[in-house]
Amino acid sequence: MNLSSMASGARDAFYTLSVSSGETRNLVLKYFSDLLQENRDGIFAANREDLAEAEASGLAAPLLSRLKLDREKLDHVCDGLRSLASLKDPVGETVFCHEITEGLKLYRVTCPIGVIGIIFESRPDALIQISSLAIKSGNAALLKGGREALRTNQELIRCVRGALRRAGLPEDTAQLLETREDVASMLKEDDKIDLIIPRGSNAFVRYIMDNSRIPVLGHADGICHVYVDAAADPATALKVALDSKVQNLAVCNAEETLLVHEKIAASFLPEFAGLLEKHGVEIRGDEAVRAIIPCVPATEEDWRTEYLDAILSIRIVPSLEAAIEHINRYGSHHTDCIVTTDENSAREFFSRVDSAGVYLNVSTRFADGFVYGLGAEVGIATGKLHARGPMGLDGLTTYKYKLIGHGQTMAEIKSGALKYTHRVLDEKCPL
Amino acid sequence: MNLSSMASGARDAFYTLSVSSGETRNLVLKYFSDLLQENRDGIFAANREDLAEAEASGLAAPLLSRLKLDREKLDHVCDGLRSLASLKDPVGETVFCHEITEGLKLYRVTCPIGVIGIIFESRPDALIQISSLAIKSGNAALLKGGREALRTNQELIRCVRGALRRAGLPEDTAQLLETREDVASMLKEDDKIDLIIPRGSNAFVRYIMDNSRIPVLGHADGICHVYVDAAADPATALKVALDSKVQNLAVCNAEETLLVHEKIAASFLPEFAGLLEKHGVEIRGDEAVRAIIPCVPATEEDWRTEYLDAILSIRIVPSLEAAIEHINRYGSHHTDCIVTTDENSAREFFSRVDSAGVYLNVSTRFADGFVYGLGAEVGIATGKLHARGPMGLDGLTTYKYKLIGHGQTMAEIKSGALKYTHRVLDEKCPL
Repeated sequence: MNLSSMASGARDAFYTLSVSSGETRNLVLKYFSDLLQENRDGIFAANREDLAEAEASGLAAPLLSRLKLDREKLDHVCDGLRSLASLKDPVGETVFCHEITEGLKLYRVTCPIGVIGIIFESRPDALIQISSLAIKSGNAALLKGGREALRTNQELIRCVRGALRRAGLPEDTAQLLETREDVASMLKEDDKIDLIIPRGSNAFVRYIMDNSRIPVLGHADGICHVYVDAAADPATALKVALDSKVQNLAVCNAEETLLVHEKIAASFLPEFAGLLEKHGVEIRGDEAVRAIIPCVPATEEDWRTEYLDAILSIRIVPSLEAAIEHINRYGSHHTDCIVTTDENSAREFFSRVDSAGVYLNVSTRFADGFVYGLGAEVGIATGKLHARGPMGLDGLTTYKYKLIGHGQTMAEIKSGALKYTHRVLDEKCPL
Repeated sequence: MNLSSMASGARDAFYTLSVSSGETRNLVLKYFSDLLQENRDGIFAANREDLAEAEASGLAAPLLSRLKLDREKLDHVCDGLRSLASLKDPVGETVFCHEITEGLKLYRVTCPIGVIGIIFESRPDALIQISSLAIKSGNAALLKGGREALRTNQELIRCVRGALRRAGLPEDTAQLLETREDVASMLKEDDKIDLIIPRGSNAFVRYIMDNSRIPVLGHADGICHVYVDAAADPATALKVALDSKVQNLAVCNAEETLLVHEKIAASFLPEFAGLLEKHGVEIRGDEAVRAIIPCVPATEEDWRTEYLDAILSIRIVPSLEAAIEHINRYGSHHTDCIVTTDENSAREFFSRVDSAGVYLNVSTRFADGFVYGLGAEVGIATGKLHARGPMGLDGLTTYKYKLIGHGQTMAEIKSGALKYTHRVLDEKCPL
C-alpha cells in the first residue's frame, strides 16, 4: 500500500465520517476499549517483543519504561476512552447565528478539520489517545509512532480499525505508517492531508515545516521560565521554582531557566541552591549569580537550551521588564511563570509575555491537556495560530459558515429591494 | 530602513500595544479618520498622480476605478472606521474559566497574534481597512500594497502613524513596505513575524508559502459552484445561479462552475442559457450540456479555472453525490451553493462539501466579511486552520492560557495533598 493511496483512503473516510453522528463516533470509542481488553494477550505479547528488541539495542531505562504497555496502563487508557466518550460532541456546534437580511440566516458551525498526519514518540498509549481524539472529533488520522513500538502499534491499530468497522465507519479513518519513508511521502500529499502534528524536537518540527506545504502545528521545545519578582513571597518562590524543575525532569513543561530579580537574589538564591543540591540539580549561573552562590558559568547557549535533565540555568535581572524581554527572546512560547505578590507586575507579565501559558504563583508542571480539563491532548502547540498550548478536541476542529436562504440575490441588496438587518440571533443551525 | 529593523520595530510596537486598552486603540481609529479628512487634499493629489501614471501605462479601466480614491470613497471608509471603533474589543475576553484544584483557576483569554505581514492589491481603501482591523485587535502590521497605489498609500500610512502617535502608541505599529524586495526580505523574518496574509492568486499564495517558514493564511482563488439539485425550485435556481455569476464578474465569490442534476437539466438549461446570453456570458459545457444547448466544449482545465470574467462552465451530474465529489475535487474550498427543496440533500451537501461557506438557495455573492457582520475583512481564508472564510477581527486574535494560583505544586497533586476539582466556573480573568 503506498502512501498516496493511504491518504486517498483517509480522505474518503473523512467524507463519510463528516456525516456520522456523535453517538456513532462514541460507539467506536466503546468498541475500541472492548477490543483492547479482548485482545490484550496479543497486545502484551507484541509489546514484550518490542521491549526485548529495545533492551537488546541498549535503549535507556526511562525510555524502556515508557515503551512498556502493561495491564495497569491498558486499564488506564480504557478508562480514558470511556471518559472521552462522555464528553460533549465537539462538532456540529453553532458558534453564532446572524440574520443578514429578512429570512437569510448565517450560522458558524464547528466541523472536523479533515485528514491529520500525526507523528509521535515511542509510547504506545499515545496511539490510543491520539486516534481516539481524532475519531471523537470526526477526523481521519495517519499515525506514525516510534520505531521501537512498531509491533505493539500494529496490534493497537488493528483494534481501532476493528472498532470502526463494528460501528459501521470506514477502517481507513485510522491508518498506521511504518517507516520514515512513509513520513517523507506523507509530507508531499498536500492536496489530501489538511494538517500535520509533529511531536518532537525543534529541529524535527523545522524539518517537517521545511519539507511540506501542509500546515503544521508543532509540539516543539519547552523552554519554560520561572521569574521570581522583587515582590515575591519567598516560601511560594521556593515551592514553585523547585517543583517546576524537579517534579519531572524529562518533560516539556519543566523549568529550564530561573530568572531572579536583583533585589531578592541574595536572600533567595542560597536557600534555593541548597534545595537544588539535595535533588542533584546542577546550576549554571551568570556572573551575578556566581557572586552569590558557587555554580557553573552559564553561556549564551544555556538560555536557549531545553536540558530535559537535572540542570537549571539561573540569571539575575534588574527589572520585571528585563525578565519579560529575556523570556520573549530566549523562550519557546510554551509556559512561563511569575512569582509575585504585586498585582501590577503580574498584569504586565501576563500581557507582555508572548507564550501559550502565563502563570502566577504556580508550578509550570500544570501545563497539560488533562490538567486543563481538555480531556487529553494530541500535543502542546507552541505556535500562535489555530490552537495554542495543550491541544485537545477543540484544537482538532475548525468551522464552516452555513447560509440558509430562499433565493436572495446580491442584485436585490444593491437595488435596495432587500435591506441588511444584521441581527444576532440565538438559534442553532437546522442543517 | 531595512526590513529586519522594520520587523524589530513592529515587534517592539506589538509588545507595547499588548498592554494598551481597547479605549486607546479605538481612539487611534477616531484620530485616523480625523487625519484622513484633514489631509484629504494631499491624499487626493497623490492619488491623481498614481492614476495618471497608471493610465499612461495602460492599466485597464476597472482597475483604474478601483485605484481611484475620491471624496465619496474616503467618507465611506471614515464611516467604516467609526463603526469599527464601536465594535466590542476582541482581545482580553475570557473564553472559559476552569478550576483545576482548590484555589487554582485557569482562564483562556483572547489576545492579539503579534506582528502580521499583509500583502494586498491596488485598492487604497484596503490599506485603511486592513491597518484599522490590525490596530483594533492589538496587532502590529507590515503592509505592502500594489505598486500602482504607492503615492496614495504613502499619504495614508502617514495618517495612520500620526493617529498612533496622537494616541500615545508606537508609530511602528503600522509600516509600509514599498518594493518587492521588501516582501522577499519580510518572508525571512520568521523570528519576528507571526503571520503572513497574502491576497492574490493561488500561484502567488503558493510562492509565499514555499518561501517562508512564517504561517500563511491565504486569500487565494475562489472557484465557487452552484449546484442545481433534482429537487430545485426552478425560479430560485434561475435567480441564484444568475446572480452568483453576473452580479459582479471580477470577484472571488462569483460562481465559476454550474452543476446541474440530469433530471432537471433539459428543463432548466435552455431558459438559463437565455438569461446568460442577455448578460453576454459565454458558456463552456460538457458533452451532456452541449446536447441540450449550444456552447463551447469544456475541458478538464475549465473545472479548475477561476475566470473572473463573463464565462461560466457547466456540467451535468447524475447525482448529489457526484456534485459533492466534483466540488471537493475541483473547487477551492471557498463558497459553494446547493439549490434544492429537499432537506436531506441540503443536509448531506452541508456536511460533505469541504468549503468555508456552504449555502442553501442563496447567491454565493454573500460571502463577505461586512455581509457576515464581522465589521470588515482582511481577506477570505481558503485554508482550514485558525480562520476560515471572511477573516475579521476574531481571525486576527489568538488566545493565551492564564493560570493563577498561590504556590500549588505538581508534587502536592501526585502525593494526594491536593486533588483535582475540574469545575467549570463563570468568571472573567482578573489579570
